[in-house]
Parts: sequence; C-alpha cells; structure tokens
Amino acid sequence: MSVRVALIGCGVMGADHARILAEDVSGAVLQVICDADQERARQVAEHCDTKDLSDDAEGVIFRKDVDAVMIASPDDTHVPLILAALSAGKPVLCEKPLSQDSMECLRVVEAETGLGRRLVTVGYMRRFDLPYARMKLALEDGSLGRAVMMHNFHRNVHAPPSFTGQMAITNSAPHEFDVVRFVLGTEFSAVSVFQAKCGVSGPTGAPVVMILETYEGQLVTVEVNVNAVYGYDVRAELVGEKGSMSMNVPSPVALNRDLTSLERFPADWRPRFHEAYRLQNKDWINSVLTGSPSKIGASAWDGYCASAVAEASVQSLSENRKIKIRLAEMPKLYRI
Amino acid sequence: MSVRVALIGCGVMGADHARILAEDVSGAVLQVICDADQERARQVAEHCDTKDLSDDAEGVIFRKDVDAVMIASPDDTHVPLILAALSAGKPVLCEKPLSQDSMECLRVVEAETGLGRRLVTVGYMRRFDLPYARMKLALEDGSLGRAVMMHNFHRNVHAPPSFTGQMAITNSAPHEFDVVRFVLGTEFSAVSVFQAKCGVSGPTGAPVVMILETYEGQLVTVEVNVNAVYGYDVRAELVGEKGSMSMNVPSPVALNRDLTSLERFPADWRPRFHEAYRLQNKDWINSVLTGSPSKIGASAWDGYCASAVAEASVQSLSENRKIKIRLAEMPKLYRI
Amino acid sequence: MSVRVALIGCGVMGADHARILAEDVSGAVLQVICDADQERARQVAEHCDTKDLSDDAEGVIFRKDVDAVMIASPDDTHVPLILAALSAGKPVLCEKPLSQDSMECLRVVEAETGLGRRLVTVGYMRRFDLPYARMKLALEDGSLGRAVMMHNFHRNVHAPPSFTGQMAITNSAPHEFDVVRFVLGTEFSAVSVFQAKCGVSGPTGAPVVMILETYEGQLVTVEVNVNAVYGYDVRAELVGEKGSMSMNVPSPVALNRDLTSLERFPADWRPRFHEAYRLQNKDWINSVLTGSPSKIGASAWDGYCASAVAEASVQSLSENRKIKIRLAEMPKLYRI
Amino acid sequence: MSVRVALIGCGVMGADHARILAEDVSGAVLQVICDADQERARQVAEHCDTKDLSDDAEGVIFRKDVDAVMIASPDDTHVPLILAALSAGKPVLCEKPLSQDSMECLRVVEAETGLGRRLVTVGYMRRFDLPYARMKLALEDGSLGRAVMMHNFHRNVHAPPSFTGQMAITNSAPHEFDVVRFVLGTEFSAVSVFQAKCGVSGPTGAPVVMILETYEGQLVTVEVNVNAVYGYDVRAELVGEKGSMSMNVPSPVALNRDLTSLERFPADWRPRFHEAYRLQNKDWINSVLTGSPSKIGASAWDGYCASAVAEASVQSLSENRKIKIRLAEMPKLYRI
Repeated sequence: MSVRVALIGCGVMGADHARILAEDVSGAVLQVICDADQERARQVAEHCDTKDLSDDAEGVIFRKDVDAVMIASPDDTHVPLILAALSAGKPVLCEKPLSQDSMECLRVVEAETGLGRRLVTVGYMRRFDLPYARMKLALEDGSLGRAVMMHNFHRNVHAPPSFTGQMAITNSAPHEFDVVRFVLGTEFSAVSVFQAKCGVSGPTGAPVVMILETYEGQLVTVEVNVNAVYGYDVRAELVGEKGSMSMNVPSPVALNRDLTSLERFPADWRPRFHEAYRLQNKDWINSVLTGSPSKIGASAWDGYCASAVAEASVQSLSENRKIKIRLAEMPKLYRI
Repeated sequence: MSVRVALIGCGVMGADHARILAEDVSGAVLQVICDADQERARQVAEHCDTKDLSDDAEGVIFRKDVDAVMIASPDDTHVPLILAALSAGKPVLCEKPLSQDSMECLRVVEAETGLGRRLVTVGYMRRFDLPYARMKLALEDGSLGRAVMMHNFHRNVHAPPSFTGQMAITNSAPHEFDVVRFVLGTEFSAVSVFQAKCGVSGPTGAPVVMILETYEGQLVTVEVNVNAVYGYDVRAELVGEKGSMSMNVPSPVALNRDLTSLERFPADWRPRFHEAYRLQNKDWINSVLTGSPSKIGASAWDGYCASAVAEASVQSLSENRKIKIRLAEMPKLYRI
Repeated sequence: MSVRVALIGCGVMGADHARILAEDVSGAVLQVICDADQERARQVAEHCDTKDLSDDAEGVIFRKDVDAVMIASPDDTHVPLILAALSAGKPVLCEKPLSQDSMECLRVVEAETGLGRRLVTVGYMRRFDLPYARMKLALEDGSLGRAVMMHNFHRNVHAPPSFTGQMAITNSAPHEFDVVRFVLGTEFSAVSVFQAKCGVSGPTGAPVVMILETYEGQLVTVEVNVNAVYGYDVRAELVGEKGSMSMNVPSPVALNRDLTSLERFPADWRPRFHEAYRLQNKDWINSVLTGSPSKIGASAWDGYCASAVAEASVQSLSENRKIKIRLAEMPKLYRI
Repeated sequence: MSVRVALIGCGVMGADHARILAEDVSGAVLQVICDADQERARQVAEHCDTKDLSDDAEGVIFRKDVDAVMIASPDDTHVPLILAALSAGKPVLCEKPLSQDSMECLRVVEAETGLGRRLVTVGYMRRFDLPYARMKLALEDGSLGRAVMMHNFHRNVHAPPSFTGQMAITNSAPHEFDVVRFVLGTEFSAVSVFQAKCGVSGPTGAPVVMILETYEGQLVTVEVNVNAVYGYDVRAELVGEKGSMSMNVPSPVALNRDLTSLERFPADWRPRFHEAYRLQNKDWINSVLTGSPSKIGASAWDGYCASAVAEASVQSLSENRKIKIRLAEMPKLYRI
C-alpha cells in the first residue's frame, strides 16, 4: 500500500523532497511532478524515475490518482494551494512558512477547522532533528527540571546585500520560533528585538538578537546572523532548573593538519538537516497511511503562531521597543 | 519497479533489516519472510505488513516471485544458502561473517567465479559509516598524504563469561579487518596478537590487542575489548604522512548536570551503526535494480579476506608469535 | 629585589592571594598580614610562613617596610583603603569591585589623577584568562575581522535565597562588563535587562539576560544565572566579521563510565580562574618592580566603568526599559 | 628562606628552568648560572636578573652559597654531575634521561643508596601534568576499577632526517615508560616493538609502535611518531575494569572560520607541558626546603627503570621479537 504523492514545486527544496521520497523512505510513490518550469520538473522526474509531469498545480491536487500533496512552490502560493488541497480533502505537507502573513495563516486554520479534521502539516523539519528531540525529552522525563531559558543561534554563511534584518526575522527566525515552541510547549508573550549596526555586510544585513518572554516566565534568546561567513551553524542550549542541555555541532571526524585540528561546517542547511527532512517526510507518509495527524510535525496552527511571532518581532525591530504578542484563540481541533 | 526480497532469518539483525526495508529505503518489497521459528517470523512480518511466511529457506530462494535474498540466519547456514542463491542466479546480501572458516569462504568465491558475475555482498556495514568514508576520501583526495598507521578500538559493554579472546577475534575483529582493508586499500601481511591477563571478567575475556602489518609497510593496531563495561564504543584514527583523521564519538547533545557535562554511549552497535545499515541496504537494493555490483559493499572475496586474517590472528594468539598472512590468489572477477 | 606586600583581608580571596604570592610567583614577600579577625590572619600567616600580623589596615599601608598593598577586605572598605594607599604613594591591587557606587569609584579616579600617576589595579582577573586573551588577540591580528557581537554566560551553582537579580548585576555581571570592554576595546552605550520569572529558586533569584550596545554598533549579551545548579560555568563567544571564537570549557580528561562520557565542572570560580589569578598577581608584582602600570590589568577607570554599567543595568531592570549609559569623561591619565 | 640554586646548562630547557625559577615559583634564588658557552649563560642570567656566571660545572656544585643543583647540560654529563652533587650532599634536579645507559643509571642509584638518603630527582615532568595525575587518582579512588590497558601516543612535528626509530625509543619513549609506571604503579615485564616501513621521512624515521606487558597482566601500547607533521600531540587513555579515562587535547578556544572549526596544536612540547614543568620545579624547591624527597617526582631508580625499558625496546626493535625486561633489584631506599 503506497501513498501517491503530487509534488508541486521543483526548486532546491522540491528536488530534495522528491529525492527523499524516491530513495529514502518506503511507502510513497511520486505520482506526478508539477512545476511552472517544465524543464525543471523534467529533471527532477528523470532523477526520480517518474513519468508524469504537469504545470497545473490545482489540477494535480484534484486528480483521483493523487492521495496526498507536497508543496514546495514559492511562498505566496502556499495558502491557495493548501486551501485547494483542503477542499479536495487531501493531506498536504507544505514547506515553511505557511504564509508570512499571519492573517493568511488563519484562513488555513479556519478552513481546516471548518473541515473538522487536520490535513495540513507545515515543513518545520527541525522538530525531527535529534538534538531538539532530546531537549524536549529532557523536559518530559524530568532530567532537566522545568525549562528556564533557551538560547538559539542561527547563522548562515552569506545573504544577498539586499537581505535586511527584517527579512532575517520573516525568513529565518520562524524556524527558531517554531522549534522553541515545540521544545518548551508554551507560547511567547512578548518580544524585544535588537540589531547590530556593524558587520561584514553593513548595518542592513547586521545580525539581529531577539529576547522573547513566555507565558511561563521563561526567557528565550534568538540570534539570527545571516552573514556569519564562517559556516552554516545552528545551535541551541536549553537551560532548566537542574542543569542544561546543549546541542553538539555534529562532525563525523576531526582532521589534524598544519598545527590545527579541524572540523567542517556545512555551507548551508541541507546537509545539517538532511536526516530531519527524511524523518519528517517518513512521518508524514506514515500519517497519511494511518489517517491520523502527526504527533510531531507542525500543524497549521503552529504555522500561524510562527508567523504571528515574526510579525511582532518585525514591529519590535521597527519601533525599537518591546511588543506584546497577541495570538488568536486556538481552535479545539489543535488541542492534543 | 521494486525488488522483491526474501528475508531468511528473523533474529535481532534480521528484524532490523526487515524494518529498514519496510520503512527507510525505497524500492524494496519484503516478499517472504523465512525462519525456522515461525512465531518469530510472524512477528517480524506483522510489523512489516508482510503476509507471506515460510520455514523453507532453500525453497524461498528459488521462488519465482523472489528477486533477491537477504540472509541473517545463523553463521553456519551462510555458505549453503549463498551457494543456493548463486545457483538460482539471484543477488544476495549476507550478514557477516561469510564463514568463520576461510576455506568455506573460498567455496563461495569459487562458485561466484564459476558463474562469472558478482552476486554476493557481505554485510560489513561499516563501509557505509560516514567517518570511515571520510577517512577513505582523505586518502583519495590527498589531504592526509599516504596512510602510515591506523588505530582501531572495538569495545562492547559485556560479553558472556564464556566469551574468550579467540571468540573476540573471530566474531568482532573481522569488522575491523574489513574496514581497515576498505579504508587503506591494501592487504595485511602479518599479525601479532597480545592478550591482557586481567580485567573485570578475568583472563578469559581479557582484551586483545593486535598489531597488523600491511604490504605497504603500514602498521595497524586493533584493540578488541568485549568487556569494556562503560559503553559500546568503536573508534578509529587514520595517520597519514600529512596529518591524521580521527573519528568523533557521535553524540547529539551534552547534558550538564550534577557538576558534570555528559554525553551518552549506546549500549550496543545498533544505534551506533543504524545509518550505516540503512545506507548499506539502500546501496544493495540499488545494485540489484541496476544489475551491477556495489562499489562500496564487501564482496565474497572481502569476506574471505576478513576470515583469513582472523584465522591467522587466532593462530598468533595461541602460538604467541607473529604469523604471516597468506591469502589465496584473488580471481580477476574481484579486480576493480 | 623583592616587593614587600601588605595583605589586607584574609577571607577566601585574601587567603588565595597570600598563597599565590607565597608559592606561585617570584619577587614578592608577604611582609604583613592584616585582618580584623586576628585568628583568621594567623592561619593565613602560618600557611605562608609570615610572622607579622596586624589589625590596623591603615597603619600597615603607611609602614616603611611595606612597598605595595593588596586589598581583599570587604567591598565597602575598598575606596578608603585605596585612598590611603594613594596618599602613601604606594601601588595597590584591590579585589573587585572598586566600589559598587560609581561616584565612589570616581573619587579614586580623581585622587589618582591628582597624583598624576597610576597606582591602582582592580582585580578583574579574567583579563589574564587565556581564552579572553586569545579573543582579544584575534581582533588585533585580524583573524576574526572586526567584532560584531559577544555572547557571555555566567553561571554559579547556587546563590543564597535572598540573592536577587539586582545583586547578580552588581556582584557578578561587572566581571562580564569589564572583560567585554577589555576584549572589544570600546564602551557600552546602552543596556536592556530582562529577568526570567521562574527557576529553581523562584523569581527573585531567576536568571538575568542583558543586551548591551556599544559605541561601535556591536551587540553584547550577558546571561547571569546564579542558580544554574549544574556547575560553575563561564563561557563566551566573540563573533567577528570573518568568523567566531568560542571558549572551550576546560577539562583535562574525560571519564567514560556507566554508558556516559563525562567531564567535570568546577563548583566555584576559583579552580576555573586559578591561573588567571596567578598571572594577574605576577603581572602586578612585575609592574610594582618596574614602576610602570600594567598594560593588561584593570585601572581605576576600568573599575569605574564596570560599576557605572552595573548601575545602568540595575536601573534598566527596575524600570523595565532600555537605559543609555553615560560615563564621565576619561582623564588623560588613562589613555594608552 | 630561599633555596640558592646553581643552574648547569643554558640550552632550551636550561633557559626555561631559569625563567620558571625567576618568575613562576617562590622560594628559589638563581645563585649562579653555568654553561660552557659563556655568552649563552650571560643571556639567561640577564633575563633572570642574576649576576654570577661560571663555566666550571663541578666547581659550582661544591660552592658553599649553593644549596641545590639543577642540571640541564648535555645527556652525557648527567651522571658525573649528579655523582658530584651526591658527594657534595646536595639535592639535584636533573633533566631526563638520567642516562641512556642503564648501567650508568645504576651507578647513581648505588651512590645514592650508599649515601642512605634520596637527593636525586629526574625531570620526568609529565608526572605533574594534570591529565596523568587524574588518571592515577582514578585508579586510587576506585572510579575506574583496576587498570587493564593504557594507550599512549607521542607525536612530534618533525625530526631530523637522521633520527631513527631507535632514537625515538631512547629519546622520546622514556617519557611514556616513566609516566605509565607512575600511573599504573607497576613494572613492565616484556616489550615487543614494531616499526612502520613508510611515512613522510621514509623507513628510517617511520613511527614505532610498542606493546608492553606488565607484571599485573596489563597491556600498554606506546606509539612514537616523531614525524607526525600535523602538530605536537601527546595523548593517553587509561582503560580500567569499570571504564576508561582519556586525556583531552587542551585548547582554550575554538576558531570558526572558512567553513571549519579549528583548534591549534602546539609546535613542540614546551607549551603543552609548561605548567607541568612549573609544578615540578615548585615541588622540587619545596622538597629541598623541607628536606624530604618528593612523593611525585621521579627518583634515580625511576630514571634507571625508564632507561632499562628503553634498552629492552631497542633490542626488540633490532631482533624483531619480544624481549623480557629484567630489572635490577630495587634498593630499600626507594620503597615508599
């Protein structure tokens, strides 16, 4: 028994998702591959041994030989395509963000609530990354006591010159917001954003440091440095009442040469989170097969929360003051 | 297009292989599951959503709806089952060792040579472990210069009281022999074995230290300590002309508690080599689909070599002197 | 040629300083040991092979057989004793803080400025800690580019129940303020302080997180968690335009036991900064011998700055808003 | 009360020892500095603020204003100068080796035994290195159980082309022999030596691997690689019945740059063992002051043992077989 998947969008992430389904998880068939750019679709299809191509995203969603939909097309197509999948009654895994506009996110939440069952998963894949899972477990099994703080560092090698601090908040920080919510199991109540005025790319692309407060009284720091130059480096430390847990930078070997011992950083997020993506997609295929929503993956509600926190953070940056975060009321559908 | 696999043997490793094929690689179907113990077979089959059970190992090999055979049954069944698969002309992945008796291994080599094509893969999965792959790469890309030494440490938590140094050599050390041959790309010329006379389990289960010499003049040390108590710990360091590369003990997080920072060891080899097993099985399924032997996996010849080195090592231990290693001549079939 | 030192104050730090002078640096003689508690003075003197005891702190400062003064008495005695040493024209090394009251600090600055030469060193010993020295060097030699951020973590095992966030700022954070100023070579322009509302000791002793901005546009975070429970742990990371440098938690060995690999934290700051204290005292004795102020040690001006930043931080905590930091004008005497 | 020291030999080590006594330990006065090369002596003296120079090594030993003798002159002068110090009844700290000739070492042992009190310390400074001290402690406090194995790695950046495997054994390996004896508290019973036939410097300078057996049945491996190229790197792991303890390569910081995280190796042994030398010299000065031999430092007997094991190892290398190690009987004077 296999899940017949329509993949919509064949950019970097779409191609990666296709490869994972074609090689690294059981139970999925890439039924049709869809992209406005047919040449791009053809290349991915060839690599994945799929024949069926399309450039009609809505069309493939409604095809009878399609069981589930994977969306990796541009951000502004996410909400309309998800709404289409919901009206077709089909499970959908959509790349993050659900939408940068939290009101748009709420439209998805409302549609799903109206349907009365959860079909949407947002691709916040870090929930499947082992270090974060261990942190969550350390809170659940009591080995850290209750959480007190969490420190998060998000560093990319380079961003384009036009990439602003605001874009760092709307594009990169939601990963942090989501995984902190996942690990801590609580919501943010306020955010204060600071931006450096220096750095290799000047003030525009200078790093952003956020301090978030939660309803449990915890402090969370998030640094987003999209011009860190030295490597793609994501790290976190969870501080609890009994101790702390920190993520190790994973490197399989150390090379000793030229009076140094060195370990390599990845150049971008894909090698770092390769296994998290695989586990996310495996979990999703399994949830489609069993017909019950994932216990780990991000829901539409989670997607809304991440975007709402990003909006408050953008406001804090532009107004240079602490912003209280006010979320809509969570529908019952999302209570676990 | 899927490979229909007959799994023979449902012990710990057989169950793991079944789960990997059922969940973590694409392209395989567990067509039939075979074990003398039908209850054990049934449990594995249920978990993997397979219906077809059997207790006739030779029978399933010759079934028309079976494309390839995976052998995880007791060691002494390996050779006869492989010979059956060869006579059926079907690819086979067999758990290590090929046989503890190098003469038996040669029977497989001869049968395969007679057939004129390579169908046998031996499950020395460490070849797919990332740290070893990086070491091999560091020799190939010149970043370490040529290899000079390799140090290898193999530690289990506990072995049964009856587990002798000789058994450590025949059961555990072949993993080391094979992966060193794989990384260095050369053969051993001599081995000298030493055994401690102390340890938690007394002289019988005391650790063994081997010094192997290669035809290139390299020195290789192998420690096998099956009663290391503190954890399952496999490590290696490759020393080259320009530097060295050492395997990091992989741990996703560090837990800081009670005046210590601690990282966990696995209790046995399965979590440590989980991804290596997955990549091995993926590579094997792919080689079956493409009809060409794996470039990474261990061949029947490799299986023979590991067992021959183990035999020389046992002789060195019992005669307390250096033993020259004399291999049969490698058939052309195995030259790359 | 030896420096005859009067030690004033025989508490924990005084006893440590005495031991360092008596054992671990050349060139110093403990001429007289002074404490209001004569029994305590006697114990330290005995350990250090000194005969001369006193309970008259001002008196020993003016003794002819005393070349230099080391002050480790209670915080509120620092300024009057330093002023006495200045009026005696004698070099003085005083434990931190110079005073918690920045106006008091300025009195020392003015007295020293009036004297026209620098005689005061404040015991901010972290300037002599190797990791911080390497960070400073990495900015000077260009290997990191210019500084962009610095993250600092200060964690103690336990504080008394009455120890508040404000006390964390006035007692612990000045170490961070001083060493960041030392590494970055710039001044802070503003500070925003946040306190968690949870933790093992309740809201009173909950951790404090500060975000400081510098005149160069850098962001500096300082976490002070005096109830971290798991160990004494001070860490820092300096982020520059070309990369980052992070402090390793120093541990000489790893112990592998019980399925874990563990490294020990110290229980307090003294083992962690043992060598920094030794190097500080060595540097101070050397500066007395050569008659020129230390190039590394903290001056009275540095002592003032640390206290002034702490005062602004306390204000930020109590008023829950960003506070601009306004320093007095630096006298020429302190320009290097 | 100060120890007036005559320093004999102003090469690299002599200059280091002079600097340590002049700066980093209390209680010593460099009374006279002696070297055949007066210019070299003058430079060291100037740096250490000493006036008195000499080129008469035996003469300074017998001077009345000299309390103790520190010998850092060429190896072949060690025994005659020590014998002179013994006849003068003065404590002596002599650089390693006592002598490369174990028979010569025994002459010192006999002279000291005849004197009836221990005056000789051999500069095997690793006994004062913190990681080795922790290993010894872990055996004493039971946290590792009894020792089963010890693995030792000794790597230099480069040796001269003429530096042979035999020289690696006589010059470098005695450090390993001594510190293993110190940690384990037992004697070696046999040694088997292997040399690689390849490496950056060809077979002559190829690495040597030794397997030593102890009277307690333990196995000890020692690798000496004097052309390791990548850095000065000394490491050890002690394996006990309950677990293992491994030495961390000490680095105060990690530098993240250019897609790598890197830590620096020292270029030679002096930065690595800087603190061990200081503690050794401090311990020696203290033992002179108290008139009782050090409980940690290596005795003349220890110096003999290290040289005797080196001789057996050279024989094993040249005869290509295991050599039993036969020590003289230990005089009562050295029993603790």
